[in-house]
Amino acid sequence: MATVPLLSDEDAAPESRAVFDRIRAARDTDYVNNFWRALAHDPALLTATWDRLSTVMAPGALDPLVKELVYLAVSTANGCAYCIHSHTAAARAKGMTPAQHAELLAVIAMASQTNALATALQVPTDDRFQES
Amino acid sequence: MATVPLLSDEDAAPESRAVFDRIRAARDTDYVNNFWRALAHDPALLTATWDRLSTVMAPGALDPLVKELVYLAVSTANGCAYCIHSHTAAARAKGMTPAQHAELLAVIAMASQTNALATALQVPTDDRFQES
Amino acid sequence: MATVPLLSDEDAAPESRAVFDRIRAARDTDYVNNFWRALAHDPALLTATWDRLSTVMAPGALDPLVKELVYLAVSTANGCAYCIHSHTAAARAKGMTPAQHAELLAVIAMASQTNALATALQVPTDDRFQES
Amino acid sequence: MATVPLLSDEDAAPESRAVFDRIRAARDTDYVNNFWRALAHDPALLTATWDRLSTVMAPGALDPLVKELVYLAVSTANGCAYCIHSHTAAARAKGMTPAQHAELLAVIAMASQTNALATALQVPTDDRFQES
Amino acid sequence: MATVPLLSDEDAAPESRAVFDRIRAARDTDYVNNFWRALAHDPALLTATWDRLSTVMAPGALDPLVKELVYLAVSTANGCAYCIHSHTAAARAKGMTPAQHAELLAVIAMASQTNALATALQVPTDDRFQES
Amino acid sequence: MATVPLLSDEDAAPESRAVFDRIRAARDTDYVNNFWRALAHDPALLTATWDRLSTVMAPGALDPLVKELVYLAVSTANGCAYCIHSHTAAARAKGMTPAQHAELLAVIAMASQTNALATALQVPTDDRFQES
Repeated sequence: MATVPLLSDEDAAPESRAVFDRIRAARDTDYVNNFWRALAHDPALLTATWDRLSTVMAPGALDPLVKELVYLAVSTANGCAYCIHSHTAAARAKGMTPAQHAELLAVIAMASQTNALATALQVPTDDRFQES
Repeated sequence: MATVPLLSDEDAAPESRAVFDRIRAARDTDYVNNFWRALAHDPALLTATWDRLSTVMAPGALDPLVKELVYLAVSTANGCAYCIHSHTAAARAKGMTPAQHAELLAVIAMASQTNALATALQVPTDDRFQES
Repeated sequence: MATVPLLSDEDAAPESRAVFDRIRAARDTDYVNNFWRALAHDPALLTATWDRLSTVMAPGALDPLVKELVYLAVSTANGCAYCIHSHTAAARAKGMTPAQHAELLAVIAMASQTNALATALQVPTDDRFQES
Repeated sequence: MATVPLLSDEDAAPESRAVFDRIRAARDTDYVNNFWRALAHDPALLTATWDRLSTVMAPGALDPLVKELVYLAVSTANGCAYCIHSHTAAARAKGMTPAQHAELLAVIAMASQTNALATALQVPTDDRFQES
Repeated sequence: MATVPLLSDEDAAPESRAVFDRIRAARDTDYVNNFWRALAHDPALLTATWDRLSTVMAPGALDPLVKELVYLAVSTANGCAYCIHSHTAAARAKGMTPAQHAELLAVIAMASQTNALATALQVPTDDRFQES
Repeated sequence: MATVPLLSDEDAAPESRAVFDRIRAARDTDYVNNFWRALAHDPALLTATWDRLSTVMAPGALDPLVKELVYLAVSTANGCAYCIHSHTAAARAKGMTPAQHAELLAVIAMASQTNALATALQVPTDDRFQES
């Protein structure tokens, strides 16, 4: 259970309800997921978060599926259960195949173990990696 | 400074030196970076780590640049300074453009903030995200 | 379910029960929450934890509500679900308003994203921040 | 060293330079710190981050010093060295006393240890903390 | 619920089923736990993970129980609920007593708090700790 | 550089100096390391931390070297550079051999990768691991 009640359309303030409508329009669905209904207690935070997300995840130099894979990888490293579930679903909706999912998992696992080793050994950064 | 001495080719055991040679061959360079020289104290761990990395990062259902972006994202979320430097360099070597780097950063920042919000609010996972 | 049974007053050792009684007295309630009942398997750890908590969270240069907000922020960054629930409740009991909760969430989200950006960019600390 | 060059006013694009000027005006100083100079490679990300930060950290239901303390606590839990230095300085600039700093540290340490204990024990959340 | 279906012996590919059989043989039990059934979607990842785990956790310079305690400590710091449950059970199966469990928890809590303090204070490493 | 000045014996308050003396006596050395000199600004926090550390790390159901290994593992997972250096040194002082260090690293790396996989897959805990 969330630390705040999830707000239905009826209970949400008009500004939050307007964001719900923009979410529905952007995703072409009637469904507004729990994250936004929890955020809706603060219409300003809801608006800022949705607007920024829409901008950041739009197609650009990286394609939307790659962005979802990165999002899922970060959510995993941060241990956010909700985000892992919702972004695994989002990645599938954007075309992630089982083979891509499997390779994503393998990369996440690989990075996690070499991150731990480099940290445990406190390896100094090579000069050549310092030149930006 | 590392918590163990970095091993030169001269100081490393033959099994570790053989891995150094495979690293050089795979990357077409004479340079072996500090991470491997620190790991070389344990030839078995060095071998297992390099072999697995080679397998995981090879082209597959995801292309090598996408894998590097995911690696860099995980390394950032895990706060591994060495890994961030080395995998930023690796991503550039595999063709990451400044525009792609900028979008990667924006996605990492976005995920970090919604991860924190979903966690702070303890949002329950929607049933529809539970169907795998 | 916890990795150890939660101890009732009947099952707890006398030293643990004595801490339960001090918790009840300090909070003016009969209820002892699950965290303490899980810790009660080790009376020494239970005693040390409760005693230290009482000292640290007492009014001082920072008022108790500010301390709770900080506690909740750290618990969020550490991803401790139990702690997020219990300290959200504790913050409300100490007077946290919905508006304060909303601003706390916004600050946590902001910090999480700039933490990620500064880490991803490996920004060197400005000299002026080094002067303590 | 950062993974990107820090941009001087001369090297930054006009949109980024404009943000530098707003930072200077808001803080009544000529100095623009490294974080913003690293972000300046992506004027859109720089603008979005500064604008959001200004909104979030403005006085509101929580006072600016409390917000800085929370920011510093989150930065510590996330292990962001740059952020710890810059927000310790910012907190001092907003009036944090040595006694307040000391209490902040004590609360962060306390939360970190009970977070670890609750996680290690996998304590189930009490029903009463679930009622939001 | 997992983000992928858990695979029964019937549904798993032959290569995955062969790993299930090796798990059963190594542990002298019919039971294959959920982690392996989730990993089984990618026989190569399942095989690599099980093989590496068997090698790493075998008796060596550290005894198997000590390795389990370390595994449990890392899992706690990383906040992996599944891993905490499974490795607490594994540690008990290898002989962890309640007194050892209690001391493990106390060390984890202690480290967590001094980690936070050293990070918050950004304490520079003493020269004498730099000599490896 | 630390976010507070490191206090010499001359600059420290008498209560902090007394803890310095207890550290010297317990370790049979004249050297007091930076962590304690940074903590010394708050004699109460210094005292509480040292006293608790002495109790927790004393021989008990786990021997002191095992406790150091666990401490080092947690410090690695938490990414505390100072703590990794100081506790690697402490583990060596308590007899950690290179072979034990290597195995410790391998276990930490192994746990880090399976933690990431179990989290990414959101594997539900087996009923049998729930029985405490």
